[in-house]
Amino acid sequence: MKKNRLMSPGPTPVPENVLLRMAETLVHHRTPAFRSVLGRVHAKLRELFSTSEPVLVLASSGTGAMEASVVNLLSRGDRVLVVNGGKFGGRFSDISAGYGIDVHEYKVEWGHPADPGEIRRILGENEDIKAVFTTLCETSTGVANDIRAIGEAVKPSGAALVVDAISGLSADELCTDEWGVDVVVCGSQKGLMLPPGLGFVSLSPKARDMVKRSDLPKYYFDLGKALNAYERDDTPWTPAISLVAGLDSVLDNMLSEGMEAVLRRHALLASSARAGIRSMGLELFSRRPSNALTAVKVPPGIDGERLVRELREEEGITVAGGQAHLKGKIFRLGHLGYTDEYDIVSALSAVERVLNRIGYDAGYGKGAAGALEVLGQTPGGY
Amino acid sequence: MKKNRLMSPGPTPVPENVLLRMAETLVHHRTPAFRSVLGRVHAKLRELFSTSEPVLVLASSGTGAMEASVVNLLSRGDRVLVVNGGKFGGRFSDISAGYGIDVHEYKVEWGHPADPGEIRRILGENEDIKAVFTTLCETSTGVANDIRAIGEAVKPSGAALVVDAISGLSADELCTDEWGVDVVVCGSQKGLMLPPGLGFVSLSPKARDMVKRSDLPKYYFDLGKALNAYERDDTPWTPAISLVAGLDSVLDNMLSEGMEAVLRRHALLASSARAGIRSMGLELFSRRPSNALTAVKVPPGIDGERLVRELREEEGITVAGGQAHLKGKIFRLGHLGYTDEYDIVSALSAVERVLNRIGYDAGYGKGAAGALEVLGQTPGGY
Repeated sequence: MKKNRLMSPGPTPVPENVLLRMAETLVHHRTPAFRSVLGRVHAKLRELFSTSEPVLVLASSGTGAMEASVVNLLSRGDRVLVVNGGKFGGRFSDISAGYGIDVHEYKVEWGHPADPGEIRRILGENEDIKAVFTTLCETSTGVANDIRAIGEAVKPSGAALVVDAISGLSADELCTDEWGVDVVVCGSQKGLMLPPGLGFVSLSPKARDMVKRSDLPKYYFDLGKALNAYERDDTPWTPAISLVAGLDSVLDNMLSEGMEAVLRRHALLASSARAGIRSMGLELFSRRPSNALTAVKVPPGIDGERLVRELREEEGITVAGGQAHLKGKIFRLGHLGYTDEYDIVSALSAVERVLNRIGYDAGYGKGAAGALEVLGQTPGGY
Repeated sequence: MKKNRLMSPGPTPVPENVLLRMAETLVHHRTPAFRSVLGRVHAKLRELFSTSEPVLVLASSGTGAMEASVVNLLSRGDRVLVVNGGKFGGRFSDISAGYGIDVHEYKVEWGHPADPGEIRRILGENEDIKAVFTTLCETSTGVANDIRAIGEAVKPSGAALVVDAISGLSADELCTDEWGVDVVVCGSQKGLMLPPGLGFVSLSPKARDMVKRSDLPKYYFDLGKALNAYERDDTPWTPAISLVAGLDSVLDNMLSEGMEAVLRRHALLASSARAGIRSMGLELFSRRPSNALTAVKVPPGIDGERLVRELREEEGITVAGGQAHLKGKIFRLGHLGYTDEYDIVSALSAVERVLNRIGYDAGYGKGAAGALEVLGQTPGGY
């Protein structure tokens, strides 16, 4: 017998009530009953995204929503600034370049946050930049960018600010309207605690104007069509009905907990994970860690791929390894979505056991001790 | 208390074992365990699609898979022939035109099948046509096209043949390799008995050559990337994990029944539905009816939208109305996927009751009688 615990930075565990909701009889999507579900979902998404503007629901992974943000805002020959501090930042460059967009890339060392001053400087020297693409939490490095400061840096330029919040939303604060974020891109399998298969795109009035003018080719991801359908709580193509039903339930879970409480919970779990990691003598990889995941350097001489493999195969704990040049060099412990204190304690304990087994003296109970000291005595003390 | 019966030509009811499978703990997609699921799924899809070639699984609705077939096969300035005999045939024209493709449209009267001779004639006069887009079952009209004959008509031209089998697959016969079909496009919420959210694209060697040469812009739907990932039973982007797990189970259901038996079952249910409809004195809309759905003319003087609404709201039976200029003029009864004899009898009985209520004398029990005479006495006599 083995229990499997999903502790990756996406996909994340799905709450039981949401699993059951998704197993209910499908509601046909072209009926008043479904439009009523989607209407509720739209209203709750605006609250989750901290915006009074439309949040569109797409049947795609987060990458599809990223592509939608590129091909709907821009036109042939436009210039953009892409903040590339990891695998997912770089994806905006790849998508844009594929559509013939002129990409100015601001390369950020992996593990470091973007410098808002540098963004301001680049925009000052390149007045033709139409949009800035960045990430809230760069999942490949565990870095949270300072979106509030980036918003201030972008504002004077008039460029649109697009934020990939696929793994960050609900773990790291994001005040979309207040901070001047024009487009928030998200996916379902992270903080939203659903299976993958839904993408989200919020659109400010400025972004909607750009959608109207955009001349890049698109069909499935045509957000003009999606905005028209949104007005009547509908979708242009068949929506992923069961996932939308799950979304209706999961948003109830989140909003009844309250978004401030959700953010506090993620912050506390993240602090406790970081403390536990340090107690084992390990180092964090990220200089500005996100509350969605903790990226940890694999100690010298230890086989990081074996660590991740044994955690999954022997201990039943699925964490993520490093990507690209970080393969084997870091591991990434997710603590977002449907995750609690004892999931953190379990994961840290498993990391400790495997490290001891494969040649690093992590001690016994140090991870748990470090985490518990931060968690304190208040039940669910978020 | 009211039971709801989904009798639309998509979405269709999901078998209970599949619903439960989708509610299991998510398997992280970048693990050997998930690749093993996807490997099984790929092999079973090839059997379902009657092909020895790759069948790619996309996280999108069927429309996304249609777009993928256009943007991956074609290049700037290419000419294509689109067989447009309904709403979904026309969608291929819209997608192609949006990407600057030169579209030659063969308009077929709604309710009629395409004439393979006319396709042969057009291709003979337009030797530069690179691909022919058509549908197996045109869901908006209930027509099944003769794909075998269309394949023969297309063959001499050397053009690629792309078939939208979104609603037809598993209901109407489609011998992909044998009939020279280069690309089959499908979706999950029809004969595959899953919730919507997965798209499928099969690719013949000729189609894969075209993918290599295609210069249309794409990223999320880049089938070159998907083919590379397919080789190692992987996907380029996060797959819709829970739907893929459901697919694994539903394909077991279908293949253990046997594809010939599945096709026979659909043929018998469709015959029984048509017989029941005629017994009520109603007329079929389609001149070459598909086994996926039965499109029925609403009798003169009867409000077709009210019929569909009352079936759903009063009787709990969800059928589809007419689309575009057929709104209120036809209704469409789906009998594909997880549907049996008594679902047909129930739906016909409900149609009868509502028709009697809203002013058409359909009699009582005529629909059931017509259907039962065809179904005969053999239990599940498929």
